Amino acid sequence: MVTSQVVNTYPLSSYSFGTKEPKMEKDTSVADRLARMKVNYMKEGMRTSVEGILLVQEHNHPHILLLQIGNTFCKLPGGRLKPGENEIEGLKRKLTSKLGANSPALVPDWQIGEGVAIWWRPNFETIMYPYCPPHITKPKECKKLFLVHLSEREYFAVPKNLKLLAVPLFELYDNVQRYGPVISTIPQQLSRFQFKMITN
Amino acid sequence: MVTSQVVNTYPLSSYSFGTKEPKMEKDTSVADRLARMKVNYMKEGMRTSVEGILLVQEHNHPHILLLQIGNTFCKLPGGRLKPGENEIEGLKRKLTSKLGANSPALVPDWQIGEGVAIWWRPNFETIMYPYCPPHITKPKECKKLFLVHLSEREYFAVPKNLKLLAVPLFELYDNVQRYGPVISTIPQQLSRFQFKMITN
Repeated sequence: MVTSQVVNTYPLSSYSFGTKEPKMEKDTSVADRLARMKVNYMKEGMRTSVEGILLVQEHNHPHILLLQIGNTFCKLPGGRLKPGENEIEGLKRKLTSKLGANSPALVPDWQIGEGVAIWWRPNFETIMYPYCPPHITKPKECKKLFLVHLSEREYFAVPKNLKLLAVPLFELYDNVQRYGPVISTIPQQLSRFQFKMITN
Repeated sequence: MVTSQVVNTYPLSSYSFGTKEPKMEKDTSVADRLARMKVNYMKEGMRTSVEGILLVQEHNHPHILLLQIGNTFCKLPGGRLKPGENEIEGLKRKLTSKLGANSPALVPDWQIGEGVAIWWRPNFETIMYPYCPPHITKPKECKKLFLVHLSEREYFAVPKNLKLLAVPLFELYDNVQRYGPVISTIPQQLSRFQFKMITN
């Protein structure tokens, strides 16, 4: 039985950041995205996606790294697994695609940790739930969020069309309007961990 | 590393329910409650409280057992630890006080499981956060929520002034108005578990 788990977090200033070629969104509208989801479902069945929660600290408070697209929309780094792909390996592949340098020697040795939440999409719609609703026998997507344990120093290469933000838990909490239901409840899901803030 | 944990849940009909003497609330108003909290803080320091999430299933969907006071207010079974008391032992004591039969032989052998959330009260006020806010060096309360693994059959004795309700996750989700911030986000905190619904 685990009653508290310690997670080391390092200052944002421990990490260095560069840029790389843009990673364009595959869809230009929500309607396009849901249509593509439907086509893929017909071919491959339920979509499984994986996302990483990367933590840093500032002012003795945990912050989460989010990718910002344009001026408003924020998302966790991650993405869709290939059919049959292992979750952990798939998340590492996606993190490297989103945040790894082009030179393999500089890509972080991603340490994928605890599963913190699972969200279900019952229909080809934007709404997701933190459970598979009763009577839904064929959910369309299952999205899994994992803690990613960062080392003391890392280099991140951010696609030129995106911004990487370190957002404090107190900004995410109770802010569904800005961050949506998945990201705004990460503070609750992380509350069981004890964050050990390591300063240099 | 744990990517999914299986939790067995049994039908509500597996459990039997009786009544026992009333357990009155110690305070008759929120103001009284906060005043008592302040007096206790002066004597004993930060209050630690523990609450249990007891799961049953109905219609192939997890339900949580909540104690209802009057017609609106719902709470998880649990309460305040004595100074220096062990969390697990304290939660067992509180569960027995709230739901155990008067006859010791009939009291469930409480299996306290995973810690699922920790909430902090920074001031002598009703608002709590799923993190200790920055710059708060002397929080007034720390509340810890634990999963309680029920056996296939149990007998619960419910104080006569309270009602015991089995509330589905889909009713709690996104329902902060009715259940408050702590209980309404339990579905997100439980989403990482895989519920194995055992039918008789």
